[in-house]
Amino acid sequence: MSALLVAVTGTSAQAWYDRFREAAPQRDIRQWPDEIGDPAEIAYVAAWKAPHGLLKDFPNLKAVFNLGAGVDQLMADPNLPDVPIGRAVHPDLTMRMTEWVTLHVLLHHRRQPLYMTQQTKRIWKGHDQPAASDVSVGVMGVGEIGADAAEVLARLGFRVAGWSRTAKKLPGIEVFAGMDALPAFLARTEILVVLLPATPETEGILSLDLFRQLKRDGALGGAYVVNAGRGKLQVDADIVTALDQKILAGVSLDVFPVEPLPADSPLWAHPGAILTPHNAGDLSPRDLASNVIGEIGRLEQGKPLQHAVDRKRGY
Amino acid sequence: MSALLVAVTGTSAQAWYDRFREAAPQRDIRQWPDEIGDPAEIAYVAAWKAPHGLLKDFPNLKAVFNLGAGVDQLMADPNLPDVPIGRAVHPDLTMRMTEWVTLHVLLHHRRQPLYMTQQTKRIWKGHDQPAASDVSVGVMGVGEIGADAAEVLARLGFRVAGWSRTAKKLPGIEVFAGMDALPAFLARTEILVVLLPATPETEGILSLDLFRQLKRDGALGGAYVVNAGRGKLQVDADIVTALDQKILAGVSLDVFPVEPLPADSPLWAHPGAILTPHNAGDLSPRDLASNVIGEIGRLEQGKPLQHAVDRKRGY
Repeated sequence: MSALLVAVTGTSAQAWYDRFREAAPQRDIRQWPDEIGDPAEIAYVAAWKAPHGLLKDFPNLKAVFNLGAGVDQLMADPNLPDVPIGRAVHPDLTMRMTEWVTLHVLLHHRRQPLYMTQQTKRIWKGHDQPAASDVSVGVMGVGEIGADAAEVLARLGFRVAGWSRTAKKLPGIEVFAGMDALPAFLARTEILVVLLPATPETEGILSLDLFRQLKRDGALGGAYVVNAGRGKLQVDADIVTALDQKILAGVSLDVFPVEPLPADSPLWAHPGAILTPHNAGDLSPRDLASNVIGEIGRLEQGKPLQHAVDRKRGY
Repeated sequence: MSALLVAVTGTSAQAWYDRFREAAPQRDIRQWPDEIGDPAEIAYVAAWKAPHGLLKDFPNLKAVFNLGAGVDQLMADPNLPDVPIGRAVHPDLTMRMTEWVTLHVLLHHRRQPLYMTQQTKRIWKGHDQPAASDVSVGVMGVGEIGADAAEVLARLGFRVAGWSRTAKKLPGIEVFAGMDALPAFLARTEILVVLLPATPETEGILSLDLFRQLKRDGALGGAYVVNAGRGKLQVDADIVTALDQKILAGVSLDVFPVEPLPADSPLWAHPGAILTPHNAGDLSPRDLASNVIGEIGRLEQGKPLQHAVDRKRGY
């Protein structure tokens, strides 16, 4: 008897469970925390921010599936069993992230916050608008998601470059590789798009020191940061300082070191900050559930997962 | 002696003149209204909202170049001379319009106005987010600009269809043709992107009657209109009524029947309306000036204009 346990915290728990039931009506699917039953029967767990320690109680666990893009909460479980961990890389997630990145790059490029402020004052006034082909966008983190976003931004005409920990090739897009190349990458970047994973090396990388290295005298006349990666990458206090001191002209943030963002954070009311509640990559639960069921089918046929977390890299 | 007269009204007149001087330093370029000189020497006019009647005074006029996307003001000149009229279709204009359309489709698709309102109240709350692949976008007017915008929207995953006065083929995109096909096109469209020219047939087409035909029960749960075409297409009062009665869930408007939009228009403060000051297609004057100089070069070699207005169609 091999059961799938759906262990999701938050308001969407029931919706996730229902999607799994639809995707595999014949399968034994149970909902944490009330329907665990015999722990020895749990072979698979589909998890999102499940409590640390939960997984170690299932002696016959064969795989864990993470129901979001970020695996850092799961990987931080000190009792994480040594089983394959499935990554949420359904094409839908990539497209979802690309939508969010494209929207927020264009919001800053087209000065939409300025036009929205003008609208509240009934002001009809155009402003100098550089062409995308004069604006340099830099994408930090060019895995599946970063590469897709870079491709769309290049299609829109932006001068796109990427930065990656290790050397990578992307068709038509220059990729700077490694920490040594980071200063040159930042010096040519006016809009910095961040899609890095959270690892010990990247924690706090979005700091005042990094913001100061961005290109402020380009076509846009200021530097912008668009972070849809992980909250731990960023130092919120440094973002506020950078905005106040015009080191940054604007930011879009979907993620924060502490979530939900505390009500007393100065970011909420900062005129240069556009915030979304960690929903850039919100998956269509229906599609991801059917993807997880497919991955379980592969395991049961003796094949490896199509998309697994590399424990050494941490993502 | 064949001179080029730059006849631009408004605050950008000097900038346009300077760009033409840079693009052709050897040429006799004059600035309306102060530097016309001998009217018989004016062979070319680069115009934007120049007064009606101006052009008829140049007996040796060979061509007129329109410095924006909309030609309706120029075409309405009752004394318009019978010379070729160059259209502003530099790739830069197309890309600029595609940026604006993409930004505003994504703003509605991703419910960004809702998240901006939540931000002012420090509310951290995600909302159901359909995938682009479940959302139907319809592009009315699939000339060069509409076809480019449709291609980018399809790349982002939207279900894109086009509507055109006459039959057209676009790779991978269904095109509905003619007034007979309009109801079927509207019935499948949740986000309507309007890039039509202003002609007697299209005037006032964006009316309550049309809005009622859009798909309101699709993935987004409401219908949206994004108009970057011409202001005369739209009946402002009908847009307000449609928003008030939830026939439309939201609109983005760059153009208006009367511009600047009057200060007492209820659109300014309507929570469902995002307005920009007719800047969707703002050209880079540098690129367009060099394009016009190139077209003049073609005429002087006895070749026709690459991009000319069709007087019968009216655009």
